[in-house]
Amino acid sequence: VSTTSSSLSTSVVPWRYAAGRLHLLDQRRLPNEEVFLDCESAAQTAEAIRSLAVRGAPLIGVAAAFGLAAEARRVLSRSPGDFDVALEAGADRLAAARPTAVNLSGAVERIRRVVRETPLLTPLERTLLVEKEAEAVAEEDRLACIAERGASWLEARWNLPPGASATVLTHCNAGALATAGIGTALGVVRGLSARRPVVVFADETRPFFQGARLTAWELLRDGVAVTLLPDVAAAWTIASGAVAAVIVGADRIARNGDVANKVGTYGLALACRANGVPFVVAAPTSTLDPLTLSGADIPIERRSSEEVLELAPGVRVAPAGVTALYPAFDVTPSALVDAIVTEVGVSVPPHEINLRELLPGA
Amino acid sequence: VSTTSSSLSTSVVPWRYAAGRLHLLDQRRLPNEEVFLDCESAAQTAEAIRSLAVRGAPLIGVAAAFGLAAEARRVLSRSPGDFDVALEAGADRLAAARPTAVNLSGAVERIRRVVRETPLLTPLERTLLVEKEAEAVAEEDRLACIAERGASWLEARWNLPPGASATVLTHCNAGALATAGIGTALGVVRGLSARRPVVVFADETRPFFQGARLTAWELLRDGVAVTLLPDVAAAWTIASGAVAAVIVGADRIARNGDVANKVGTYGLALACRANGVPFVVAAPTSTLDPLTLSGADIPIERRSSEEVLELAPGVRVAPAGVTALYPAFDVTPSALVDAIVTEVGVSVPPHEINLRELLPGA
Repeated sequence: VSTTSSSLSTSVVPWRYAAGRLHLLDQRRLPNEEVFLDCESAAQTAEAIRSLAVRGAPLIGVAAAFGLAAEARRVLSRSPGDFDVALEAGADRLAAARPTAVNLSGAVERIRRVVRETPLLTPLERTLLVEKEAEAVAEEDRLACIAERGASWLEARWNLPPGASATVLTHCNAGALATAGIGTALGVVRGLSARRPVVVFADETRPFFQGARLTAWELLRDGVAVTLLPDVAAAWTIASGAVAAVIVGADRIARNGDVANKVGTYGLALACRANGVPFVVAAPTSTLDPLTLSGADIPIERRSSEEVLELAPGVRVAPAGVTALYPAFDVTPSALVDAIVTEVGVSVPPHEINLRELLPGA
Repeated sequence: VSTTSSSLSTSVVPWRYAAGRLHLLDQRRLPNEEVFLDCESAAQTAEAIRSLAVRGAPLIGVAAAFGLAAEARRVLSRSPGDFDVALEAGADRLAAARPTAVNLSGAVERIRRVVRETPLLTPLERTLLVEKEAEAVAEEDRLACIAERGASWLEARWNLPPGASATVLTHCNAGALATAGIGTALGVVRGLSARRPVVVFADETRPFFQGARLTAWELLRDGVAVTLLPDVAAAWTIASGAVAAVIVGADRIARNGDVANKVGTYGLALACRANGVPFVVAAPTSTLDPLTLSGADIPIERRSSEEVLELAPGVRVAPAGVTALYPAFDVTPSALVDAIVTEVGVSVPPHEINLRELLPGA
């Protein structure tokens, strides 16, 4: 574990938890308003996850963990006799809020397992146990290691002169707004920024505009140069030679290294491979899913047609009567991923073999 | 020239010209309003082209031709003594309205040449000559041939059972709203629809939403089944096996077969090649530019950052202070294009060799 990583920071803090109340920055209202939702139950937290008020694979794991802590506090104060049944129901509800990111069910199952394995505690003791485990899910240390490892890997690959600037492209938001710390992909960007001037091309990331609304806001706030790209312009920008690397996060990485991430990621990987540009996935090991053998086994969430058709509240451009298909994620085949950067180490192809050493418990 | 093509039609008519007045359907206001702009000069027509009130490579050629006819009528009635100078100035202004589509400068130069080559005519006779040549630029017959040739080529490639439906994906709008007839890419769709049930996936095509606003409207109006896709979802949809072909138009095709088209096209071609799906470009020979040797020589229009940042009048999602990069076109390398379908014939790789036989005057 690197010690220099502690210098990386962000001013963006999208969540707080205290005494049974989870405060979540409502990302639907960024960048215009910074409003926090108060969640005091599993149901409220699950709805915040489902409605994209909070999003990003690591952060929805953290939110679910503290949502379960809030649920434990709520049940403790109202009907402690129902504690076990209520906690299980809350865990089920949270785990089912969205299907693709494995961090979500992973965080919930981790807490459920700890509680089950210590059956002799009182409801108060078990509530404290849930809160302690939720704190452990928040993975700031891991993120700092990912940032350092990713930046080092790219620096070695690039071999640029000191002080030369580097331009990287990212998709969606895998930053402080997606995690409990400095971000995964944007953590690597922050790691690079500590070494040389960095310019970021941010895909706007239709239909929810995570790039335009969240990544641009987060990077501007931290003083990192950012230019938006319509998603359609990314491949040509990569082909033009203007991009030194594409860095993205992940929602689930299968045992063979296939990567599920925000839809549009696969197209970026194709453009990188066609033009010899490194394609890097940055993700904590909690995103690795050894139980899923390949990308074909990852459930891909289909979201509502309305989220495509309504650009902003009340703003539509498509004619009445048309429908839209909106897979929220896509799968990038393992062979197109030049590096999977985790807090434990970096996997390069063949990921089928090299990823095994990074798996939890390997 | 096929005769069966005459059965293909559309109810969409985006332009009319009569007696010095060019009526252009204002495509910025579709699908909500069907409003026609009246252009009675080269300046008004150039502004309609620049502002995207009228767009689509073949149609802006037609609009420029009739804009020049309107200019000729205007000068004839006001200051016939200045006819030659005024017509040249109008031609310059129209040709400079947008840089990428070669049909625009091609149509203007064609008329300019005819006028220069017949210097002994009176201003009235020359005005009639301009109008006659503009009629010739309107290429409905060519479009019907493209539709038939494209549909036949795909049918031969697919070898589907009679009556089986086919799903194709298109980008931007290369339809009746982009041409003087049934469209190029959507002409091929109409040709296929005459043979079997066809379902169209239409990329919404950020930032101007030509797919969501124009292609969806045009196809719904003509009774063709259409589903919108966020642009980011196209590659994964192609990889999923749901798409039998991608069919697009072109703004300029270089001598070696490199294709400039709406930005996002290159990424589609990469996804097609990676997944063995035919990638077809449909364009009249007026889009071929033998004077441009390769895609590197095609000027790529950069449009205003504002067109990305403002989703609809008054609607923005990105934070204040961020800028955007908006190349309006990209270049797809020749080798990724499985077929270039023109009214004269179909070129398959190597286009460097096969395209020569389709060049005007070859």
